[in-house]
Amino acid sequence: MNQKAFQDYYPPELNQCYGCGQLNEHGHKLRSYWDGEESVAYFRPLPFHTAIPGFVYGGLLASLIDCHGTGTAAAAAYRVEGREMDTLPPHRFVTASLKADFLRPTPLNIELELRGRVKEMKGRKVVVEVTILARGEICVRGEVVAVEIPESMARNVGTEVQHRSSDR
Amino acid sequence: MNQKAFQDYYPPELNQCYGCGQLNEHGHKLRSYWDGEESVAYFRPLPFHTAIPGFVYGGLLASLIDCHGTGTAAAAAYRVEGREMDTLPPHRFVTASLKADFLRPTPLNIELELRGRVKEMKGRKVVVEVTILARGEICVRGEVVAVEIPESMARNVGTEVQHRSSDR
Repeated sequence: MNQKAFQDYYPPELNQCYGCGQLNEHGHKLRSYWDGEESVAYFRPLPFHTAIPGFVYGGLLASLIDCHGTGTAAAAAYRVEGREMDTLPPHRFVTASLKADFLRPTPLNIELELRGRVKEMKGRKVVVEVTILARGEICVRGEVVAVEIPESMARNVGTEVQHRSSDR
Repeated sequence: MNQKAFQDYYPPELNQCYGCGQLNEHGHKLRSYWDGEESVAYFRPLPFHTAIPGFVYGGLLASLIDCHGTGTAAAAAYRVEGREMDTLPPHRFVTASLKADFLRPTPLNIELELRGRVKEMKGRKVVVEVTILARGEICVRGEVVAVEIPESMARNVGTEVQHRSSDR
């Protein structure tokens, strides 16, 4: 897709996540988009992202659910305010709670599809349902309770980024 | 620790998991042990396992809970039968359901402690509670519903291992 992903709008200091930060060179760089009322992302696990040979490691699947969930939460927060994701103030969510039900083994070596749907929005909280499909079949059903990044965490970011930079 | 970890007893074809397989050269190689009635594991995230800078990525924390949970389930299955983990038939569990509540941000750059406790054992199912602590403080509270590896998955393993080997 050529359109910008939700994650492309994260401010640089909040775009370092191993799962979806576009600036984390070691990470998965998940990219999520709107598709009507649902959000969608595609991801092809690497051959070593294995659980039992031939199947995808559950921790990776949980990670994708997590990041697609928080991304969808942020996008939904802008959308409900009727403004674009490049307008201020920025919305950025972290995960309060994550759940994943592994309905069937997820096959390795194919592209997976993630679909997100906002289930609830209330105050600083957004609940997002995320499913992971392989060849059109639902393999994992997840739910993310996302909360807008707390002040205490946001306050630390500047310091920590400085600290990380000075380590290099 | 010099003692063998639960994961050291996994048969080679089931010891490939990205989170805890001792034969996955790209993975986390989590190692879990008994500590009385609880199980324990230690893990130091890498600097790029970040969420918001300075804090650990939730997907990694969920992964550690997952693997420590299934490892504890396997160890408990042997223990309840009064036999060692190197005796046959082998027990190996996969995750049916995973939950993680992120109680507070988990600081990066320190060793984390995972503690597991068997909550329920019934037939092929073992429910394990896992907490993740940083500097003695609980940051994440998780629960894994682990089930003994289904026949259908076990049957595939041989084929998939062969397939993977022939790819090299």
